[in-house]
Parts: sequence; structure tokens; C-alpha cells
Amino acid sequence: MTVWSIDARSGERRAEYASTTPEEVGAACRRAHALLPVLDEAGPQGRASLLEAMADALDARTGELVAVSDAETALGEARLTGEVARTSGQLRLFAEVLREGSFLDVRLDSADPASAPPKPDLRRMNIPLGVVGVFSASNFPFAFSVGGGDTASALAAGCPVVVKAHSLHPDTSVLTLQALRAGAVAAGFPEDVVQLVHGREAGTVLVQDPRVKAIGFTGSVSGGRYLHDLAMARPEPIPFYGELGSLNPLVITPGAAKARLEEIAAGLSASATLGAGQFCVKPGLVLAPEGSGLAEAMAGHFTALGPQTLLGDSIREGFTAGAAEREAVPGLRTVATGLAGEGRQVTARLLAGPVSLLGSSALLLEECFGPLTVILEYSGEDDLAAALSAASGSLTMTLHSAPEEEELANRLVALARDRAGRLVFDAYPTGVTVGWAQQHGGPYPATTAPTTTSVGAAAIFRFLRPVTYQNCPPALLPPALRDGNPWKLPRRRNGILEQPSQG
Amino acid sequence: MTVWSIDARSGERRAEYASTTPEEVGAACRRAHALLPVLDEAGPQGRASLLEAMADALDARTGELVAVSDAETALGEARLTGEVARTSGQLRLFAEVLREGSFLDVRLDSADPASAPPKPDLRRMNIPLGVVGVFSASNFPFAFSVGGGDTASALAAGCPVVVKAHSLHPDTSVLTLQALRAGAVAAGFPEDVVQLVHGREAGTVLVQDPRVKAIGFTGSVSGGRYLHDLAMARPEPIPFYGELGSLNPLVITPGAAKARLEEIAAGLSASATLGAGQFCVKPGLVLAPEGSGLAEAMAGHFTALGPQTLLGDSIREGFTAGAAEREAVPGLRTVATGLAGEGRQVTARLLAGPVSLLGSSALLLEECFGPLTVILEYSGEDDLAAALSAASGSLTMTLHSAPEEEELANRLVALARDRAGRLVFDAYPTGVTVGWAQQHGGPYPATTAPTTTSVGAAAIFRFLRPVTYQNCPPALLPPALRDGNPWKLPRRRNGILEQPSQG
Repeated sequence: MTVWSIDARSGERRAEYASTTPEEVGAACRRAHALLPVLDEAGPQGRASLLEAMADALDARTGELVAVSDAETALGEARLTGEVARTSGQLRLFAEVLREGSFLDVRLDSADPASAPPKPDLRRMNIPLGVVGVFSASNFPFAFSVGGGDTASALAAGCPVVVKAHSLHPDTSVLTLQALRAGAVAAGFPEDVVQLVHGREAGTVLVQDPRVKAIGFTGSVSGGRYLHDLAMARPEPIPFYGELGSLNPLVITPGAAKARLEEIAAGLSASATLGAGQFCVKPGLVLAPEGSGLAEAMAGHFTALGPQTLLGDSIREGFTAGAAEREAVPGLRTVATGLAGEGRQVTARLLAGPVSLLGSSALLLEECFGPLTVILEYSGEDDLAAALSAASGSLTMTLHSAPEEEELANRLVALARDRAGRLVFDAYPTGVTVGWAQQHGGPYPATTAPTTTSVGAAAIFRFLRPVTYQNCPPALLPPALRDGNPWKLPRRRNGILEQPSQG
Repeated sequence: MTVWSIDARSGERRAEYASTTPEEVGAACRRAHALLPVLDEAGPQGRASLLEAMADALDARTGELVAVSDAETALGEARLTGEVARTSGQLRLFAEVLREGSFLDVRLDSADPASAPPKPDLRRMNIPLGVVGVFSASNFPFAFSVGGGDTASALAAGCPVVVKAHSLHPDTSVLTLQALRAGAVAAGFPEDVVQLVHGREAGTVLVQDPRVKAIGFTGSVSGGRYLHDLAMARPEPIPFYGELGSLNPLVITPGAAKARLEEIAAGLSASATLGAGQFCVKPGLVLAPEGSGLAEAMAGHFTALGPQTLLGDSIREGFTAGAAEREAVPGLRTVATGLAGEGRQVTARLLAGPVSLLGSSALLLEECFGPLTVILEYSGEDDLAAALSAASGSLTMTLHSAPEEEELANRLVALARDRAGRLVFDAYPTGVTVGWAQQHGGPYPATTAPTTTSVGAAAIFRFLRPVTYQNCPPALLPPALRDGNPWKLPRRRNGILEQPSQG
């Protein structure tokens, strides 16, 4: 079997990669497993240097990475240049997380022989979970791919990584791998701390390899659920951190529609069609007041949109089918269509109808990946609340409201909070800032692991496992747990947090 | 169908409970779901009062709880009295966790409109995951049952709980429920914050109810794996926090055997047979130096043990079969047998043989629940390391070594750390202290969720989910995220932890 690098715009074959055989995947997992002690013994400081060297290596190759990924994905130079910077920035954020030290969550409970029953000396810290398998996403060839958030957080945790390249950007994957490995070598690490496999079968073998102890995945509901189920059916089930599908409902209250309809129409149209609508946080469902004129106000923005080149054939076929299914829903009207293009291009679509359609068409609560957004019009607050309640788990929910609508807004926030990982106010969900306070997750099907995040500093916790040392002789304690706090970590002693003295 | 309360010593029927019907389980889950806002709006302070009132109510009923549970489990008054105290202490620990506030993990990232791309204001906190289903354990009728660790941590997180009573102690379960509900009412909460269901079918319905968002389970590998797989096959898979089976290998180095053989023989025999060997952290496999005389030194302790009454018929049948299977392993000798008793009692068993048996009998790496321990004798350090490497995930691993064996000890600790949740040094694994630094978990089959703990302060994180508020108007922010920090929480601002000013 062969994986081809395809030019997204022309459909021409650019380069060929042999699919990785099951034996080769096994060998990669064995090599990764053998490197666990290397990453572990490097400690947080050593791994911070590794991540920074990888970030530097990516930055140094930005031009080449952008050129190749633009050919494979048609996402455009500006966006891809920004994405490389975001990806190296993400690696540097985890270096910061490592140097700060609270990710180890060190907890020390003193012995108390006099208590009943007597209390032993307990010292707890996080350790690496083991080899991590990462599945690249189609729509973020850098930030959610070979050197993306899953890889950065797994390496930060001390876990060697085996990445499954996405079939829509194998060349980009190989170039990224080379950069990461050059960074590893520059920092004094073996290059196999990150490895790459190609092909669908390699992915299923990776999920089932006994040395792999967690999976990070960003992709479709069908593909993600299939791999999730494989991971759970292993003799030893393992955590499967999957980001699958997200509808990202956006609510416009009557007050917001009245106060700033044109502004919202412009901002929402831009957000819904950014990157040809190929964002996991694209607002796919808009709840707007009946008679507000939102659909009409957005129509011009959609009509003016040029033809869209999607990431590849499979994505285009999925979008074309999904759009046709939705256009066929009785009662849903096509408000606007973007400009038509060549055979490999698609046109953006804006659909609208009454919110009552939710009662008859479950399809409207599913993501349609690509430049299509559905407006459903509600007639009152209860109608709106019922629609929001019907939505499944999403990465984001967005609320546009007016200051005088506090009671309604609080009602909607309570509903949205229980169904999403990020609540956006008077803005748009696209654009996921990488930082300490970010949450990129949410109830199923947004993710398969709602207690975790795949973006931001807290993503490291997915790949860590706590261990408690009871009554351990001082000579056998790891540095993080020793008296005197040689690593100057924030530590919790008998429940009380102690910040290390600096300097 | 009927669930009977059975006297563990006599086998007589004590009381009858109707199995909960699927419709009743559904109704319980609906009632629980309706109480989510009540627990949430009570806030950490309100929920702390709830847990303390429940603890008081349990303490006040200790005599009655102990009498009933002793009849149902034969665990004895002393142990059960201690277990009630441990259980109320656990509820109080989570009250402390709530008042301390770091469980909310509040993170605030300031807006920075000047950065490229611009950064929005992000405020992140943990919220309750939803209704939690809890499966009681046979062997801890209080600490891992109706009012046990899973219930305490779920309520602390703000999640209403529906408990599946263990069929071996339904009377104890009902009495405990009454105490918890009396506590709830005393603290001004609806009693349905905790509910109880009976029967096997009720358990499977509970795992599959769409309102249930996580499961806590303590029990066997077969039962736990079955329910885990049900939870993962739901339309919406949910976290399944299962504690299944654990071998808890205990290593004795040549130096330790030389220095204190008799002391280890006595301590280990007591730990292995405590509570008739019915502890999830019972040391089930001992690795001792060939010719050390450990088996002979332990023989006397086992021979002197009186007949053992196990928790119930199903446990006794499982033990009898498991012991017979092991006694039939060629090359494994029965070193000692406890005193024989009546028909409903069993005798403790100590078996021994060469470590090479691991190559031919995978059975020796599986838990045998009850008073049986296997000693495997090794001939050298590599032999020992290979045996430890062969072990599956365990809740604990224990090392007895001598100070001059630091190199060997470090080698063994590295192996044990990657296979267990708690490492015990020169002591015994039974006795799980409840505190901030405890870790009760480990790789499969010890648990289905190795990144979490079911004992100790960190257990609350299993039932929380992060949400980020982006660009939220001040009037809509929850108190935990407001400027001015009205709840006086420890919060992380732009990555830096801020402790609230006290008072």
C-alpha cells in the first residue's frame, strides 16, 4: 500500500510514501519504549531544552514547511505561517510548564505514628504514562499534527511519541518530523523520541500495540470512535484522548440582534468560513430570533465568498454529501451560496429555517465539516432554551446578548456550560489561544475525554500518572520528593501549598 | 428478583430486598439529574457542610452500622468500627478539600489585544461532571461502599450519586443510605443527593443511563471489565473509574532476608491474612531469595491461623476454586495451611516454588482474592528483575531491602514505579491512609483509569470537568472567576499561582 502526497488545488500526485508495515510499527513502539528512561532522567529542565530546540528547528524551517503544507492543504501562506509560529509557541509553552514544576503535583504527607491508625510518610508525584500514539489532524497540519499539541504535551510529560501522519499531508509530516528530530539531536536527545508512521493499518496497529499507553487523536466522529473502541477493547484498555465532532452552537439573543445585527452578521460569516469552514470550532449552528433578519444580513457575506478549495478529496466528498443532505431537509432554505469554481472546488452554503426542524431532523445537530452554517430561528426564550438543550457536547458555545438581558443570559449560560468546554461571549469561537487558562475539550462527541484538554498548559496532565512513595528511604527518593526540595518545586505539604524560595 | 441479606457466618437469610427495576433506576437517575443545580449552587462551602453532616450522621449510628455489617460480612467489630470512622473521616477530608479551593483549578489569562494574534480574556475552572453511578465493593462495606470514597468525592465535586448496593451487604447499604440522607436533610439538602439501587440488572441499567456521566467501581476483574465495556459502548462513552484486580508483589532482597527474616515473616503473614486476605492491596505474590528460609519462617504463622469466614458464598466459592487451581500448579508446594473449620469456613494457604514457574503459569500473576499468598524464590538479581518485569499493573508494590543494596534497590524501584500506583518500603501494603498525598490506583488491571486515584484528596478530580469563559461580561461570571476573588481561592493568573490573602 502507498500513501500519496497530493496537491490540494490541482489533485496531482506530488510524492509517494510506503505505508508502514505492522512489523515496522511494532519496532517503532519498541524503540520509543526503550527511550522512556532517557526522557524521564532528563527531568523537567532537560525536557524543556528539548522542546525549545524543537521549536527553534521548526521556526528555522518555516519557509519550507509553509510551501509544502500549502501545496498539500491549500490553506494559504498567511494562515500556515501563523500556524507554524503557533506550533513552536506551543512547544515553548510546555517548556515553561516544565520549568514552573506544578505539573508534577508533588504532595507530601508527614508520618504520624501517634494517630490511630498510624500514618506513614507519603510522597506523591506525577510520572510519565508511557509511549503515546498521536493521530494527526487533517485541518491543522502543524498545530494538531506531528509537532502539535499532543506531541508537545506528551514529550513534556516524558512520553516518547509515535505519530500517525495524516494521509492528506504526508510530505508536511515528514518535513516536520525532520525538524523535530534535528531539534532533539541539537538538545542532546536521540531522534527517536518522535517517530512517524504512515497508512490506515499502521494507525490501528499503533492503537493496539501493548507498549502504547495513551492515544491522542483529532479527527472525525467515525474515525475517532472506531479507534476509541479499539483502544477500549485491548486486553489492557488505555486512555483515548479523542477530539471528534463539534457543532459549536452560537446564540444571538433578541437584544443582541437589535443592537448590532450587521456587526454580528459580518463577524459570524467570517468565523464560519475561515479556513473554508474547516475548523473544529466553526460555528455550525446559529440560533437567531425569528424575524431578526440575520440570514438576510449574512447572505451578502456568503454570496461574495470565492470558491473554496478543501483539504483534499475525502474532505470535499464528505462536505458535498453533508451539504446535499442538509439542503434536502424539508423546511430548510438555502439563503446564500458562494461563487462557483472549478471541479475541485466547492461553494460555501448558508441555510436557514425554523428551530422546530430540530424535532424532525437530528442531522441538524451534527457537524458538517466545511463552509456551511445553519441558522435556526426561534420564536421565544423557551423555544431557544429547548433548542440549546437539545445540542450534544461541543468544544464551544457562544452567546451574543445585550447587557439588559442578564436573566436570559444566565439561563443560557447554565445550559451552555453543561454542554461545552469553552463559552465565548460577544465574540466568535474560531481562534483557540494557547495559554494556561485554555480549555479545548467538552462532552462527547466533542471529545471522548471530557475531563481533559488538548490545548493549553493543562494538556500535559493527560500523559501523567501519579505514584505515591510510602516510607521511602531518603537514598531511594526521586529528587522531586526529597527533603530540602532540590528542584525548587511548588509542593503541597499536609495539604498546604508551599512555594519554593526563588534564587 | 430478590436480593437477600445473608448472615455471613451462618448462611441464614436476614432480610429481603426487591431488585430495583430498570424503570426505577431511570427515575432515580432523573431525580439525581434534577439535583445537579442544587449541589452546584450550594458552592464549595455548602457542600462542605453537607459532607460534614453526613459524617456526623454516620458516626452517630456507628453501633448499629457495625452490628448489621458484621452480620453480613463477618469482618468483625473492631475492623468495622475502624472502617466507619475511616469513612466519616474521608467525608471530612473532602470538606477540607472544598474549603481549601484548589480543586477548582482556577486559571485566569489576561486579554492582550496587542499580541499577534490578539489574546482574549480567558477564565477557566472545574465544574461538576454530572450524575455519578457508584458500585459498592464487597470487602469494604463502608469505606468503598454507599458512603465511601467514590460517593464522598463525587458529592464534593457537586455530582449527585446513585449507588448500586453490593449484594453481600444490602442491609448495611440501606442503613448507610439512611444515615447519609439524614445528614443531607440536616444540612438543608434534598435527601436524593444520594440514592440506592439493588440487583445486577439495576447495575447494568445504571451504567447505560444517558444522565449518568461517570462510574466509580471497586470489584473483580470480570465484573469490572464487563461494566467498563458497557460504559465504553454507550452512544456517549463515559469515564469508568474501575478498581479491578491487584497482585501487589512484595520483594525481599537478599540483604533484607539476611537482616530481618523473622520480622518480615511475621509482618508479611499478618498483612497477607488481614481481613481473611480480602484486601485489594493484599500482598499476593512474594519474591524471596532462594534458600532464604522465608517460606519456613512464615509457615508457623499460617499454621496457627484459625479458620476464616469469608464475606459471602460467591467470595468463598471464588477463593476455593482459585486456591485449588494454584495448588495444582506443578512445582508449587503447599507450605502451610491454617486450621480447618466448619463447612462455611476456609483455611488460609501459603504456597511456594521457584520463580521459573512464572514462565509456565500465567495464573501466578493473577490475584486470588482471600487468604492465600504465593512465595516465588529467585536465584539472582536478574532472575528477580525479570519476575518483577513480568507482573501486570498493581495498586502497590513493596520492597524490603538493606541500606547497602542501593544499586539493586534503585533497579527494582524503577521497575516497580512503572507498574504500580504506590510503592511501599520496608513495610506492608495493607492499610491505605486517607490524605492529600495518597494514591490508590495503578495500571490495568489494577484500575481502568491509571491517571486517577480513588482514595485521597485528588480523587475529586475524577468527577470534575474544566470550562473556560472567554471574554465573559462581569455580570455573567461565576464567583470563582470574578475579579476581586470573592471566594478567596488559590488562582493561577497568567501562569503564576496567587494565594488568597487570608482573613
